[in-house]
Amino acid sequence: MLYLIGLGLGDESDITRRGLEVVKGCKRILLESYTSILPGISKERLEELYGKPVEIAYREKVEEDIEEVIEEAREDDVAFLVIGDPFGATTHTDLYLRALRLGVKVEVVHNASIMNACGACGLQLYRFGETVSIVFFTETWRHGDSFYDKILRNNAGKVEGGLHTLCLLDIKVHELNFDEMIKTGKPVYMPPTFMKASVAASQLLEIEERRKDGACSPDRPAIALARVGAKDQVIVSGTLERLSRSDVDDVLGAPLHSLIVCGELHDLEKEFFEHFDIDKR
Amino acid sequence: MLYLIGLGLGDESDITRRGLEVVKGCKRILLESYTSILPGISKERLEELYGKPVEIAYREKVEEDIEEVIEEAREDDVAFLVIGDPFGATTHTDLYLRALRLGVKVEVVHNASIMNACGACGLQLYRFGETVSIVFFTETWRHGDSFYDKILRNNAGKVEGGLHTLCLLDIKVHELNFDEMIKTGKPVYMPPTFMKASVAASQLLEIEERRKDGACSPDRPAIALARVGAKDQVIVSGTLERLSRSDVDDVLGAPLHSLIVCGELHDLEKEFFEHFDIDKR
Repeated sequence: MLYLIGLGLGDESDITRRGLEVVKGCKRILLESYTSILPGISKERLEELYGKPVEIAYREKVEEDIEEVIEEAREDDVAFLVIGDPFGATTHTDLYLRALRLGVKVEVVHNASIMNACGACGLQLYRFGETVSIVFFTETWRHGDSFYDKILRNNAGKVEGGLHTLCLLDIKVHELNFDEMIKTGKPVYMPPTFMKASVAASQLLEIEERRKDGACSPDRPAIALARVGAKDQVIVSGTLERLSRSDVDDVLGAPLHSLIVCGELHDLEKEFFEHFDIDKR
Repeated sequence: MLYLIGLGLGDESDITRRGLEVVKGCKRILLESYTSILPGISKERLEELYGKPVEIAYREKVEEDIEEVIEEAREDDVAFLVIGDPFGATTHTDLYLRALRLGVKVEVVHNASIMNACGACGLQLYRFGETVSIVFFTETWRHGDSFYDKILRNNAGKVEGGLHTLCLLDIKVHELNFDEMIKTGKPVYMPPTFMKASVAASQLLEIEERRKDGACSPDRPAIALARVGAKDQVIVSGTLERLSRSDVDDVLGAPLHSLIVCGELHDLEKEFFEHFDIDKR
């Protein structure tokens, strides 16, 4: 059996009782480290808790060599650990499907993901529209019209006002450093990079400046979240302009960050928004 | 401290390790039994696991008498257990806010909720629009234009095709039976009622028949889910018309049910849709 097991969002103690029981019974344990990271998680602490070795599965493993893992799961129990919930990223849905195609049984142990835990900011989950991913601008590419369009569409709700948009922020983990590879002739990886909420806000303001459609105007209410679900999570609210300033980084601290572009705020939501006001801290 | 603790979606073993540790340290434990139920959960099994008594908190308790609980949490640790994730329903967001207003500290232990675990059907979570709640038609009220409008809006996506709509289905728990109360002079409650996916599909078809806007036409692809996250979860796909037939109830079995009205299906999603085809079972 192949078990896809969500670890939740904080540290090793956020696995469910059932998840832990399953992991302990597995012959092989892989920890997915491509689509996300858990700052509170270390391979060593997981191994101590499980009493077994844990393999780190990087992008290449997950996208290319995974059939070997699936084949092993035909005979033995294999656990594939995923930060958050197993269905939070296309990669894991794809893994599930590959196992189905090969006739290997899969079971899922769910957990919290940013898609539902972002409700911690007090915005109602049923008032969110489509989720977007904000990717890093580069020197030559700074468009992002795809995610801007989606935010615009969520905002422009004619049914009970505009909807909120959860923005998942770019992460670069285990990416190859081509310059160094040419010099050394060996695979060299860049240190991981995580988009800060202030950078996401700045990028949205830059697109607004060009598009002027009003989805991400400087006075648009927004909420920045860091390490949602961890003991030291931080949530702050303000206008997009306010959250684009660099002092927000000091308040939020370490990754992972997320950003919510607010639609119309209902009364209950307004009270939360004021509670988290960055200028009232 | 007031702890809002998500129990997840299956049975008592779906609490997280951290959640269990917190519950065991609390002086008082309440189980919210108004916004949802867990068919796999019984008060007795929870009490056995926690080694402490568990109080059932019905609607009246949660909406009216909760300040007494919050005040107790000012001095002692109190756990308020919630099926799924604590931020899945407005009631709990409101509870959080009340505690904030009274200056009582609140901590949240997240867990899976239907809002993210519905990804188990293979549809990508980031391709969902606004979530809707489908309520029971009555003899005199059969409109439902509010949820139909939202599905229509999700479907009519101009950005990368129409979006999927998660439909949460009506539940009636601990509702007063007025006829019996008049007879007996005492509060009498009706047995709990849970909307079946086939009923939700039929209601949507009935609205479509009147509106004819195409959001819920008989050939619209849809997915019905039962007991998501539990060991015996069932997922079936078909057209809305197919899923409105009564044999779907036999396949799905006991509550809780949910229904997803599909938007445009991407390749990966199509493969899942075919995998879950009700006529291939």
